[in-house]
Amino acid sequence: MSGILRVDLTTGKSAFEELSGRYNGLGGRGLTSAIVASDVPPKADPLGPENVVVFAPGIIAGTTLPNSGRLSVGGKSPLTGTIKESNSGGSAARKLARLGIAALVLSGKSAEPVTITITKDGVAFRPASSLWGMGNYAAVEALKAEFPGTGLITIGPAGEKMLKAAAVIVTSPDYQLRAAARGGLGAVLGSKKVKAISVDDAGGPGVAIARPEPFQASSKAVTDGVVKHPLSNGLRAYGTSLLVGLMNEMGGLSTRNFSSGRFADAEKIGGESLAAALNGRKGANAKHSCMAGCVIHCSQVYTDEKGKFITSGLEFETIGLVGSNCEIGDLDAIARIDRACDDIGLDTMDVGAAAAVAMEAGRIPWGDGARVLELLEAIRSDDPLGLLIGNGCAVTGTALGVTRVPVVKGQSMAAYDPRVLKGTGVTYATAPMGADHTCGNALPSPANPGYDPGSPSGQGQVSEFLQSFFAAIDTLGMCIFASIPILESPDLLRELTRAVAAKLGVELPEGYIQELGRNVVVAEREFNRLAGFGPGDDRLPGFIRNETLSPGGNVWDVPDEDLDKMFS
Amino acid sequence: MSGILRVDLTTGKSAFEELSGRYNGLGGRGLTSAIVASDVPPKADPLGPENVVVFAPGIIAGTTLPNSGRLSVGGKSPLTGTIKESNSGGSAARKLARLGIAALVLSGKSAEPVTITITKDGVAFRPASSLWGMGNYAAVEALKAEFPGTGLITIGPAGEKMLKAAAVIVTSPDYQLRAAARGGLGAVLGSKKVKAISVDDAGGPGVAIARPEPFQASSKAVTDGVVKHPLSNGLRAYGTSLLVGLMNEMGGLSTRNFSSGRFADAEKIGGESLAAALNGRKGANAKHSCMAGCVIHCSQVYTDEKGKFITSGLEFETIGLVGSNCEIGDLDAIARIDRACDDIGLDTMDVGAAAAVAMEAGRIPWGDGARVLELLEAIRSDDPLGLLIGNGCAVTGTALGVTRVPVVKGQSMAAYDPRVLKGTGVTYATAPMGADHTCGNALPSPANPGYDPGSPSGQGQVSEFLQSFFAAIDTLGMCIFASIPILESPDLLRELTRAVAAKLGVELPEGYIQELGRNVVVAEREFNRLAGFGPGDDRLPGFIRNETLSPGGNVWDVPDEDLDKMFS
Repeated sequence: MSGILRVDLTTGKSAFEELSGRYNGLGGRGLTSAIVASDVPPKADPLGPENVVVFAPGIIAGTTLPNSGRLSVGGKSPLTGTIKESNSGGSAARKLARLGIAALVLSGKSAEPVTITITKDGVAFRPASSLWGMGNYAAVEALKAEFPGTGLITIGPAGEKMLKAAAVIVTSPDYQLRAAARGGLGAVLGSKKVKAISVDDAGGPGVAIARPEPFQASSKAVTDGVVKHPLSNGLRAYGTSLLVGLMNEMGGLSTRNFSSGRFADAEKIGGESLAAALNGRKGANAKHSCMAGCVIHCSQVYTDEKGKFITSGLEFETIGLVGSNCEIGDLDAIARIDRACDDIGLDTMDVGAAAAVAMEAGRIPWGDGARVLELLEAIRSDDPLGLLIGNGCAVTGTALGVTRVPVVKGQSMAAYDPRVLKGTGVTYATAPMGADHTCGNALPSPANPGYDPGSPSGQGQVSEFLQSFFAAIDTLGMCIFASIPILESPDLLRELTRAVAAKLGVELPEGYIQELGRNVVVAEREFNRLAGFGPGDDRLPGFIRNETLSPGGNVWDVPDEDLDKMFS
Repeated sequence: MSGILRVDLTTGKSAFEELSGRYNGLGGRGLTSAIVASDVPPKADPLGPENVVVFAPGIIAGTTLPNSGRLSVGGKSPLTGTIKESNSGGSAARKLARLGIAALVLSGKSAEPVTITITKDGVAFRPASSLWGMGNYAAVEALKAEFPGTGLITIGPAGEKMLKAAAVIVTSPDYQLRAAARGGLGAVLGSKKVKAISVDDAGGPGVAIARPEPFQASSKAVTDGVVKHPLSNGLRAYGTSLLVGLMNEMGGLSTRNFSSGRFADAEKIGGESLAAALNGRKGANAKHSCMAGCVIHCSQVYTDEKGKFITSGLEFETIGLVGSNCEIGDLDAIARIDRACDDIGLDTMDVGAAAAVAMEAGRIPWGDGARVLELLEAIRSDDPLGLLIGNGCAVTGTALGVTRVPVVKGQSMAAYDPRVLKGTGVTYATAPMGADHTCGNALPSPANPGYDPGSPSGQGQVSEFLQSFFAAIDTLGMCIFASIPILESPDLLRELTRAVAAKLGVELPEGYIQELGRNVVVAEREFNRLAGFGPGDDRLPGFIRNETLSPGGNVWDVPDEDLDKMFS
């Protein structure tokens, strides 16, 4: 009933096959990675016709389980050369699931720009030449008029130009822009000349629940647990920017291209400043949802002092990498850069890290948000320095001769300094996706007071556990923030496992979540091995290993052997 | 007596060890690659302190064997990520050999710019801050005044800025500039803050010949064979540019970013035009030698119409990649770009290929040599588009979103289209150095009338034979052009083997040359394997595989299996 919809862009043909064999019981990241590993030669050119882009809702997409509408986007990454999954909220995942589409696989390459429409009647193509060149805001405006009520997936000029930090944009129910931003999968869509995808679930079969009653009971238990968790309250009040204060306090907030862990203007860009701005400004919304079924509402609608819309969704990672890491201590400036990234279709994280590298090279004054914004806008007219930044931190470092480049496997680290969060550092070094906090961020937690994030020992086990857990969460299609209460509570974990079993109509063992995730990561690592990656690639950049972080004096002292033992 | 001089730039300490064990009987490329494979972790950052730069004269350096003064420069390449050897004529190899230095190994990283002086008394360092930022012409002018009569090795601003197409410059006896240009080893020297090396062989022990009489007899036989070979006469008259006409005639001269094999203005940039210019202009020299002991004199001194010096050594590869491939049909314009590359310290080949990619992206008008020159000069002031071109063809293609990028493993192909010379195509695809014609260029030859360069079959064997042969020639330190007559004559091959045996005081089997070379290539491939390269990397770029070449309609049809069988 649920199956894989394959679209060959070279021939324009499509085919639907039932989910079976090794794909059975998979969704989200687990399914995108399995399809990529099966269909893409590990040495393929990520921007060539051999690569695919896979869109997959999670196993529990479209159900009443909370925050279960993440859309996994998979392919071989042009940024990292590894297998890649990047996920986002928005409407498309839920609508795909309701159409019975477990995965949409785009292969080959279209000759001309196209929009793909997916409905209950199948796949159709429309010429997209008039949209090509448009920013995501304008493209979404045009598309939502043409295809009202659908879930949209688009790329901006960055994807069209195949820049390595190009994001895939997904619309929220109110047509705000969200991004599956990491790893340059927008460039892969651009290489295939796919400007947009519209997903219309009207008249679709909906989502089947094998055992509705136990499912609803477990689903409600999970929802209640997530809603009442203190993290959910914090996120509701401050968004993810509540982490600015915590990381700055710990001395691990990426500052001035990772040369410091504390930013003098941290308060100006932290959660309380954000909440104050949002609560005081016309048109702003501090409790926005990026997808249906969200019980947390960490997103925002951010307006300027006159009440004019700037952007929606201003995340900690953007604030940390565009803000403190570039010494830009001004939320409005960060929000405008965030908006430009959304419109041009770029990963704010690799862009922020790249801008800081360009600052270190003397090409942009430290803290000059207006200049960063100008350079981003200049990508539309092919400004070379803008193009460098749009290609991310690693390419920018290469071209400008900077050796302090905070990347692993070509992808920039997140705003947590790994010398302070060492479990996160192990994740950066060893995750199959390059430096990626969502693969296993080892933050301190009141629920786990015995964990010391600064200890050099035991971080491998912590990271491995978290990498497996979050790979499972990405496979379920659940939002990370809803999963933290589950991570901390054996009861909630049991209820979640029961809910998945009831949804699928199977029995699942107690260790299901960890085993599911571990299998996903192991398969991803195998793809990377065949693509040429090995233990020597699982390392943090030299300057992180060699420099002491001010002001705390933190050093990177996790032994290489611990990195080499991961998942062995 | 002959040994390895190791210089640790971090500590400033140096040590000399006798050549022994696995290094015995090696020189040139064989020795640089053996040392790199032993000393550099395969996954090391090429611009980090773990990389080394090795300089090695060949086994027969400093002897009377003709054209035996090539200097091999080795390291892990920042351009390709593979092991790398690039070699050049000039004075340094002969002088190192006469000092008893089989290899000079630079490891670690200096804190400040340095000049290293090598004399019979050992190693010394001088601050080079006053030279840092200088072009190679100015630096060599200053250094030859300070260290008269020495062989100089320098880098220009490109190496200092660690651009991936940065060359290592070596001076000829008359202080013209030659380049070990490929693979960005100039950037590795730049990362170590080494601006210059001066080699003074005064008072050195000289080169020992174990059995002088048989050596001289064989050496004379080889010399006679090389001198009288028709290729030597052609090179003497036209330089390597004699290949312009041949390749254009065959329809395989890289033109307009490898979209055609024939250039309308080929005659204007071919051998006869070059000879006419050189023979008609004041101050020009059509029979220049880049090193002592050269019996061919393919180099030139190129002047403008008023007799003002422009450049020395204007090679076919430069003419093909900067000229026809960019549709620049003007030798003076090409010569000026060549001079800029020498002065800034760049590989003319990757620069020409990158400029054509930038033309394809619409960033430079086709054929606009003045604009290319302007962009190269702007590298000194960090112009972003100039920096892209200075980082070579692959980075330029990435940043500008061009998919027709003529590289293998990040290094640009030479000016021979692989769809016309398919044995050369196999070499491009499978050589351990990336796309490199010097590793095994399968040109048609009157001496081998049965060889069809356009046939899809048998090219693997041809390339494997040539890759081994030229790896041996690079290990001997002999110029490729002197080796062609030897390749074609079993008698000369026998005399060369006898000469080497007499030099070393050993007995050598008949198959010595091929076995020596094969062992070198196999060891290099093993380093690359450990660095993450595999069969899937041994492929020509997609557009070469998918497009038919005009006007001849040539296609790339060598089976992938033939590539995968190489050296197995």
